[in-house]
Amino acid sequence: MRKPVIGLTLGDPTGIGAEIVARVLHERLLPQEADVLLIGDRRQLALGEADIGARLDIRIVPDAGAADFAAPGIPMLDLANMDPAAIARGKVSPEAGRLTGETLQQAIRLGQAGHLDAITFAPLNKQALHAGGWRYLDEHKMFADLIGHQGYFSEMNVVEGQWMSRVTSHVSLRKALDLINPQSITDAIRLVDRMMRNVGIARPRIAVCALNPHGGEGGLFGTEEIDFIRPTVKTVAATGIDCSGPYPSDTIYLKAFAGQFDSVVAMYHDQGQIATKLKGLGKGVTVTAGLETVFTTPAHGTAHDIVGKGVATPGALQAALALAAKLAAGAKAQA
Amino acid sequence: MRKPVIGLTLGDPTGIGAEIVARVLHERLLPQEADVLLIGDRRQLALGEADIGARLDIRIVPDAGAADFAAPGIPMLDLANMDPAAIARGKVSPEAGRLTGETLQQAIRLGQAGHLDAITFAPLNKQALHAGGWRYLDEHKMFADLIGHQGYFSEMNVVEGQWMSRVTSHVSLRKALDLINPQSITDAIRLVDRMMRNVGIARPRIAVCALNPHGGEGGLFGTEEIDFIRPTVKTVAATGIDCSGPYPSDTIYLKAFAGQFDSVVAMYHDQGQIATKLKGLGKGVTVTAGLETVFTTPAHGTAHDIVGKGVATPGALQAALALAAKLAAGAKAQA
Repeated sequence: MRKPVIGLTLGDPTGIGAEIVARVLHERLLPQEADVLLIGDRRQLALGEADIGARLDIRIVPDAGAADFAAPGIPMLDLANMDPAAIARGKVSPEAGRLTGETLQQAIRLGQAGHLDAITFAPLNKQALHAGGWRYLDEHKMFADLIGHQGYFSEMNVVEGQWMSRVTSHVSLRKALDLINPQSITDAIRLVDRMMRNVGIARPRIAVCALNPHGGEGGLFGTEEIDFIRPTVKTVAATGIDCSGPYPSDTIYLKAFAGQFDSVVAMYHDQGQIATKLKGLGKGVTVTAGLETVFTTPAHGTAHDIVGKGVATPGALQAALALAAKLAAGAKAQA
Repeated sequence: MRKPVIGLTLGDPTGIGAEIVARVLHERLLPQEADVLLIGDRRQLALGEADIGARLDIRIVPDAGAADFAAPGIPMLDLANMDPAAIARGKVSPEAGRLTGETLQQAIRLGQAGHLDAITFAPLNKQALHAGGWRYLDEHKMFADLIGHQGYFSEMNVVEGQWMSRVTSHVSLRKALDLINPQSITDAIRLVDRMMRNVGIARPRIAVCALNPHGGEGGLFGTEEIDFIRPTVKTVAATGIDCSGPYPSDTIYLKAFAGQFDSVVAMYHDQGQIATKLKGLGKGVTVTAGLETVFTTPAHGTAHDIVGKGVATPGALQAALALAAKLAAGAKAQA
């Protein structure tokens, strides 16, 4: 069986993407469990080489299917779609957003054609992507739409081996309340359980958040916990998943971060993100879970303030690649 | 002008209240800006003395109005209502809850009669209080009801000089959404501003949370920010209060904790409490703000697991007393 293949894109060209990709390649921070195919414009990568002051051994391949991962050099599919001379670095550019989306679209097509098992993308700029014509509520919805995915999928944040997931995401809080039900809670628990098993956690311990303050305080502060959250968690637990809850959300993250759980499933965006960002913004990896292709990206952004200075650190990109490799390998083993 | 008087109660007799009160008195950790009148059962305090292995110089006063704070010894109003021999320590007791509520009720009456400016209470047990017949959603609502207060008031959490407040509190998240409006937001901002000015922060910097993810993302994820939160914050700011927002709630606490703001006003309970508890549960002080009498208490609980061991630390109670003194002095100066 061949190793899984990760397509690695350079991200928004106004940001630090090319630099951290070059750094990861130069310092050989690639995962062992997967092969990596670079996808993007060779000239953009050259900027990254200049940023870190090193030349990379890049081998241009004519198409993704022709990539020989045993041959010397790092294979790259040169899309030749992004002329760095035409785009200023360090500020938001709709044109850069348009092209970043195009490159991701190409990568997704390669995934659908069976050439890639996972896509790791260097940071994009949500505002530029939107202004560049990719009018989705977030990139995860864009990926799902381009793939033609129906059903549940979710953004997850992985920090220090812990998986933060959520039942609802980029919708108003009022709408989120309407979307929280036995089916969506079940989907969320099962998906994060599957993801963690794919990366080798044998029996992930999953805590499920309550919706209301104090977990509803026995019905005094809301009845969703009694009506369907607790019964749903019990039903899913009966299928062999180590999930429990609902737990009051103002203390469960403390317990999880102290090591009592591998994952917390939040009911809505800010419930999870307040804790996740306080725990360590920028250290983590963002995963688009539940689509046919695995997507990972550093949790940090394009870092316009340090572009071109050669000081960007590659740790989160390295972690994103490592996670993509594990997830893809786990998914292949299961298939 | 006489100093403000703080009524100090011993809290639920099953917990560490008497011990930390004894410790604060023995180590002379009382604030300079106020006088303190002990309110409770002398026998309960004797348990605390035994816990710390020290005798206190207590002077029983016949009634609150007769307390001479210049005389030697610590004045105490002995309610003689709580026989420690009849109540086991270390576990929840409805009878203890009933008596804890009675003592607080007595203290509130003394406040209404003009004998107390503030009440600092050692930890109570919410479950015991409720089981003991004080059937309120929380102790803050109990205080408001006993005082006969109409209108807005709020629990606030003060940690390391920062004030965490909220527009809505112990109600279901769905109900909270219905209670968030220009009036309640205005009330919340003004109250926390007044509290901070009372403790000597000249121009408190107040950040107001958004309700929806990403602050509504320009209306894509909800319109409350556009419809009324931002206009309300602007209107209040125009009255001379240094408030700003709405800010996405998953990053504003990071900024506040880094020192950019003195206060964050959350829209609902868990939004504020997730961040506050991750920041430092147990170190802080809880304030019931907006009532005619100031109430403060340590943020920690009755700590049944360490009762009677002489190891309870008095830091949070000391902070609660110091804050009560400042708040009461500030309120008197303003009046």
